[in-house]
Amino acid sequence: MLARQGIISETDADAIVRGMEEVRREIEEGSFPWREELEDVHMNIERRLQEKIGAAAGRLHTGRSRNDQVATDVRLYLKEAINETLQLVRKLQRALVEMASANKGLIMPGYTHLQRGQPVLFAHHLLAYFEMLRRDAERLADCYRRTDVLPLGSGALAGSPYPLDREWVAKELGFSSISRNSMDAVSDRDFLVEFHACAALCMMHLSRMAEELVLWSSSEFGFVRLADEYTTGSSLMPQKRNPDFAELARGKTGRVYGHLMGILTVMKGLPLTYNRDLQEDKEALFDTLDTLQTTLKVFAGMVSTMQVVPERMTRAAEDSAMLATDVADYLVARGMPFREAHGVVRALASYAVERGRELRELSLEEYRRFSPLFQVDVLHLTAEASVRARDIPGGTSPRQVESALQEARRLLEETGGE
Amino acid sequence: MLARQGIISETDADAIVRGMEEVRREIEEGSFPWREELEDVHMNIERRLQEKIGAAAGRLHTGRSRNDQVATDVRLYLKEAINETLQLVRKLQRALVEMASANKGLIMPGYTHLQRGQPVLFAHHLLAYFEMLRRDAERLADCYRRTDVLPLGSGALAGSPYPLDREWVAKELGFSSISRNSMDAVSDRDFLVEFHACAALCMMHLSRMAEELVLWSSSEFGFVRLADEYTTGSSLMPQKRNPDFAELARGKTGRVYGHLMGILTVMKGLPLTYNRDLQEDKEALFDTLDTLQTTLKVFAGMVSTMQVVPERMTRAAEDSAMLATDVADYLVARGMPFREAHGVVRALASYAVERGRELRELSLEEYRRFSPLFQVDVLHLTAEASVRARDIPGGTSPRQVESALQEARRLLEETGGE
Amino acid sequence: MLARQGIISETDADAIVRGMEEVRREIEEGSFPWREELEDVHMNIERRLQEKIGAAAGRLHTGRSRNDQVATDVRLYLKEAINETLQLVRKLQRALVEMASANKGLIMPGYTHLQRGQPVLFAHHLLAYFEMLRRDAERLADCYRRTDVLPLGSGALAGSPYPLDREWVAKELGFSSISRNSMDAVSDRDFLVEFHACAALCMMHLSRMAEELVLWSSSEFGFVRLADEYTTGSSLMPQKRNPDFAELARGKTGRVYGHLMGILTVMKGLPLTYNRDLQEDKEALFDTLDTLQTTLKVFAGMVSTMQVVPERMTRAAEDSAMLATDVADYLVARGMPFREAHGVVRALASYAVERGRELRELSLEEYRRFSPLFQVDVLHLTAEASVRARDIPGGTSPRQVESALQEARRLLEETGGE
Amino acid sequence: MLARQGIISETDADAIVRGMEEVRREIEEGSFPWREELEDVHMNIERRLQEKIGAAAGRLHTGRSRNDQVATDVRLYLKEAINETLQLVRKLQRALVEMASANKGLIMPGYTHLQRGQPVLFAHHLLAYFEMLRRDAERLADCYRRTDVLPLGSGALAGSPYPLDREWVAKELGFSSISRNSMDAVSDRDFLVEFHACAALCMMHLSRMAEELVLWSSSEFGFVRLADEYTTGSSLMPQKRNPDFAELARGKTGRVYGHLMGILTVMKGLPLTYNRDLQEDKEALFDTLDTLQTTLKVFAGMVSTMQVVPERMTRAAEDSAMLATDVADYLVARGMPFREAHGVVRALASYAVERGRELRELSLEEYRRFSPLFQVDVLHLTAEASVRARDIPGGTSPRQVESALQEARRLLEETGGE
Repeated sequence: MLARQGIISETDADAIVRGMEEVRREIEEGSFPWREELEDVHMNIERRLQEKIGAAAGRLHTGRSRNDQVATDVRLYLKEAINETLQLVRKLQRALVEMASANKGLIMPGYTHLQRGQPVLFAHHLLAYFEMLRRDAERLADCYRRTDVLPLGSGALAGSPYPLDREWVAKELGFSSISRNSMDAVSDRDFLVEFHACAALCMMHLSRMAEELVLWSSSEFGFVRLADEYTTGSSLMPQKRNPDFAELARGKTGRVYGHLMGILTVMKGLPLTYNRDLQEDKEALFDTLDTLQTTLKVFAGMVSTMQVVPERMTRAAEDSAMLATDVADYLVARGMPFREAHGVVRALASYAVERGRELRELSLEEYRRFSPLFQVDVLHLTAEASVRARDIPGGTSPRQVESALQEARRLLEETGGE
Repeated sequence: MLARQGIISETDADAIVRGMEEVRREIEEGSFPWREELEDVHMNIERRLQEKIGAAAGRLHTGRSRNDQVATDVRLYLKEAINETLQLVRKLQRALVEMASANKGLIMPGYTHLQRGQPVLFAHHLLAYFEMLRRDAERLADCYRRTDVLPLGSGALAGSPYPLDREWVAKELGFSSISRNSMDAVSDRDFLVEFHACAALCMMHLSRMAEELVLWSSSEFGFVRLADEYTTGSSLMPQKRNPDFAELARGKTGRVYGHLMGILTVMKGLPLTYNRDLQEDKEALFDTLDTLQTTLKVFAGMVSTMQVVPERMTRAAEDSAMLATDVADYLVARGMPFREAHGVVRALASYAVERGRELRELSLEEYRRFSPLFQVDVLHLTAEASVRARDIPGGTSPRQVESALQEARRLLEETGGE
Repeated sequence: MLARQGIISETDADAIVRGMEEVRREIEEGSFPWREELEDVHMNIERRLQEKIGAAAGRLHTGRSRNDQVATDVRLYLKEAINETLQLVRKLQRALVEMASANKGLIMPGYTHLQRGQPVLFAHHLLAYFEMLRRDAERLADCYRRTDVLPLGSGALAGSPYPLDREWVAKELGFSSISRNSMDAVSDRDFLVEFHACAALCMMHLSRMAEELVLWSSSEFGFVRLADEYTTGSSLMPQKRNPDFAELARGKTGRVYGHLMGILTVMKGLPLTYNRDLQEDKEALFDTLDTLQTTLKVFAGMVSTMQVVPERMTRAAEDSAMLATDVADYLVARGMPFREAHGVVRALASYAVERGRELRELSLEEYRRFSPLFQVDVLHLTAEASVRARDIPGGTSPRQVESALQEARRLLEETGGE
Repeated sequence: MLARQGIISETDADAIVRGMEEVRREIEEGSFPWREELEDVHMNIERRLQEKIGAAAGRLHTGRSRNDQVATDVRLYLKEAINETLQLVRKLQRALVEMASANKGLIMPGYTHLQRGQPVLFAHHLLAYFEMLRRDAERLADCYRRTDVLPLGSGALAGSPYPLDREWVAKELGFSSISRNSMDAVSDRDFLVEFHACAALCMMHLSRMAEELVLWSSSEFGFVRLADEYTTGSSLMPQKRNPDFAELARGKTGRVYGHLMGILTVMKGLPLTYNRDLQEDKEALFDTLDTLQTTLKVFAGMVSTMQVVPERMTRAAEDSAMLATDVADYLVARGMPFREAHGVVRALASYAVERGRELRELSLEEYRRFSPLFQVDVLHLTAEASVRARDIPGGTSPRQVESALQEARRLLEETGGE
């Protein structure tokens, strides 16, 4: 570009390009003679280039400053990292879809307040996480868009006096656009804060899944058995399967929340433009990336390999207290206003509780004491029927879940999830 | 919709609509008879409706649950609040554009490390904040998109057994789409976390501007005088103008950071679906909104009314140490490799510092001791020339800043910024 | 004091004191004529005093500034609030002690990784929270000590030119000492940050207890039934007891964490001395206090009134997999090195798991296949025996727990816990 | 201890002690044969011990579990680290005391709102930081006290069935007391949270000092010149001294705040007892320690070596607007009530501001237009006189500052600050 714009000669440009290719080869081969006494990587490279091509090397740094170069490097790095992360989000989404597909008919209790609420398909429950991850992917894509801006050409802070072709450089380096204000460009770290916020949200979702896996692995729930690779046993208690990976993932949420808080604190109240405080941006980024990517990978593996214990789920789902809403809906379907039906079922349920019986243990005659609208079919209300009835978009009926699974698969194919 | 779908009769639907309009009128007029003994606003309204239209009121709640209704209400509320916030972002952007336009030629020092670095246009400096706010607006718009999803029809957690037309309801209520998974829909608060993250970023930008206004208002800088409405004086020291509003805004950044951490903490490790912990989402939202909107308003006023002190800025900008880069560029323009020019200027600057003189106080003869490339025009290097030379996109030259101002005005017109 | 030091006359001092007592009475009686047009509470009082005693009122403010006065007021307020909080901590400790005393012999599973680990006394489990709260009380007392310092006499920032007797004022106002540096005194908010940190730690403990109460209230665990006042039922499902108060408390942890981060952010990077940012210290303090005190009260009530379900705990505690450690200890007690015993039990447990049997279902002959050290008494290993064996300080044996209970009661009596 | 209590034989105990000393030597000499295939450091050591002393090595782990051992190790580590940190706090305090002593008479402006408020001694300003650090040291000492508790003997969670002498072990390992509840002991990380909170507060103080050093190093203030080791210059601008170390320290505040948030998040809502989430406690601890200790060291160096520029401070301190309070105090001393004096000075100051003159430029006759109490000595009001007048404990008068310096030196001697 410097030669195209007449800033340096073609000869010098050729020499620089040729020399830099040799330098790259040396670095890749590990034969590059790093010298600690030179200030940093930039000076090491420039010195080595000088040894290869002589004085022309002195023109390498023309039109650049460390401030705009560092900002460019971090953006290049994060762009690639976001793409890798998106792949891993999709990998976990695929694992959820596969586990859901393999257990299509399986019913479990749906919980509110950790109390059994209504029966749902296990597949429906898994797909709730698919949706959370879908939003995570959208947010990461939005963050990518704002990272995809070239700051090079902003100089130290005021712009460059050389007739640089910034648009051309952006194209060469794969950036979609160029920054619009040099002072903003060298001190902007929004894209990093935004990435940490995306990561914190995604880790929050994973912490919820982790919590559920821990619960489901307990003796009390017993809904799943995590694979050996994802548990550690007490050697004394071989039947014990500590869900260590899920717990670690839950714990690592704190780390990512902390990094988000850290970078926000760093930026608070900094006057323009570059301040050395900004150097604090890197370690946290590397650690958040590493944490998020590793956790996504672990979850993909953990979900793929977990063994469902259908009999425990089914038994819990048969708790007929969860059918109270269905009994009310039964009456509404037969013409009773909702609020009145609500009252009838409340009385009915209290009647059962007082007698230490479950709803499904009541006789038709007992039902009819509370409303003459009850017919024999009320006795056929089951978890299956309850699930089947919730057949509108977003509901847990097998038909809706099947269609959600298909849409999920389509999405994964489109976005090239492996 | 309930009638259109045959869930309730047309007669009941008409009665409900008619009754609800009366209820609305009563609430608006302040004549609604609120009763504390009824559980909440929902029950108050339903009871009042019953007094007006009788039994049909009992059908009002058909196909809804508090879980999906609350989620819907918060989303409706936030959508409107985001739009209001966007208006305020634009109002501040306009204030920056106007202040920049009114001071087009004014030069000030650009700082790195709070050390004078290179001269820049004051307008260029202000437009750096314009860019930050532009990204804030983009992020808020992305957040709006993810808030704009209707959860109604998700029931308590499993979906609804009634043949609700969710798409139609979405259209009626102004939502662009419907949620895809009922369990996710009733426990998703991502949009709130994302909004807090957007707000935290925006407050961070405002804290930087606040810091600069505090600095610029000090006796030592003296670049601006804030208007009386935005300062409090010590009554004993009438010349003292404490930048209280800027300080308060800077302080309020902590409050918004805190709310972001708060909501992330609330969500960490919550199992599906609804848990009462989620009730903690509201107060923080209201407070963040209130803080952000008020602060944006205050800044718009503070920027519009501040009085620039051109002579203090200009005097500071004349510090010729800031021209060192320009002297190096001068040599590069005359064919010297950048690294060599760098060495010459270093020697030259040390020479000046040792003699307690500024660069602009050196004679041509002294310049030429360091390189024969120096001609008489090196003595014409000034802050103005330095600024003028940075004439590539994003740079601080008057031409670039003028074009940035035009683009900024175009953007504000398009987005209807008042 | 102003008169004692000869700063104002005795006559004026008497008039001021007399007038201020009238003012106090008016405020207490609600008859004080507040005027909005006067700047703040200070000016209102001074003006009213003037109406009562004339010109001497103008001497009221002698030797004070708003900066040192506000700092004094907040410290007075927090000192009282800490003492109230300590009372509430003790109230919850007492509730734990009473619940533990009422269920002395009750055994439950102790968990690690939410997996059953070893049987413990329910009382021992409750006393773990007693210890956490004991540390909270210690930390609050340390914070009190650092709050208990009088800043009055620091003036706006540089100290006072009047010969104030600061030690005497400290004694009068109940402060243990006076601040040592005026610039520090008017800008120090350490005591607030420290209080928020104490509160965050205490809320963290309560969030752990909340999590356990939620788990224990689930159908799957079923260890406790929370009282009606601390649950909300679904009206349709009367047997459902949503642990709303525990969930809310868990959620409110986020709020207090957020306030801690908020005040830390406010203070970051503030130059000396007073800056208006500091005004942000109050609302968060009030909210943290209110949240912490209310949550402590709720927990005291919730713990006192919860109904334990001994049969569910006992059944869970009989899970003989938890006795593996005891079997190993059995062998060690008979001379086998720990590591070897460990190997024997591992083999034994695998043998049982492979056959789908529990440890307690194995015959002596089967035990002896793995080691000849096993005698018939190995069959008497039970949860009770396991608990009884852990009889060293801090252990779960009934003897140790009894002595811990006695010590806890002693502590509460000493500290005057109601 | 195991032998003293008869848990293992004297012979075995001797063998173990002897073997472990060899192991220690091997590790120190670097000749220990680490094997990756063994699970962790514990198993490596036990295996090696076995190679040296045979079967007795199997008794090494008797009466311990990883849970109580890890908790013990972290506490041992932190106790030492706190003591090191205290040494560094004192080192910085000493640097402040020395810098203050070397500039005893130097006057500078004291600021509120970054506006010049009242003249103060530079030494007084430095001692404000001494006080902040004193509180940091107290808090660290309190945290040490709560860390100084031995958890060993708590077993995995329920205590140990062996007759361990926990008090004796505590004494041997240098702990002041033993933990009182085994379930609490293995899951308590309060001491870590508390340490992070102490560190966050201390970093907050350092961030304030950093901000001031950055301000004071600017061309606009020009109060100090940081030593070459603590600045980086632009090579092109040798007179530029970027306060990089101060900026980095200010930035690192975010890192420590983040770790505090991280550990609080980890602990939120964890059920008892040990959960693998707790493993997240270590890296953050190491990083916070490293950050805090390094920053304290850097500040000690930076403060010791900074060069004060007395003429810039003095010139700024001569700004006579800062004497307004003194003029009011002058009138009060001559019998005028404070509020009235306040009014007189306000009028006087407005008069001066309107005429573009400073207070000290007014004639006695002009003063007397506002009050006949003014005598010729009012013209002698100077920054020196103002400072001298604030002569009560905590004030900025030379006498008070001298006594504060002496007390500071005494404290450092007592606490053995190097």
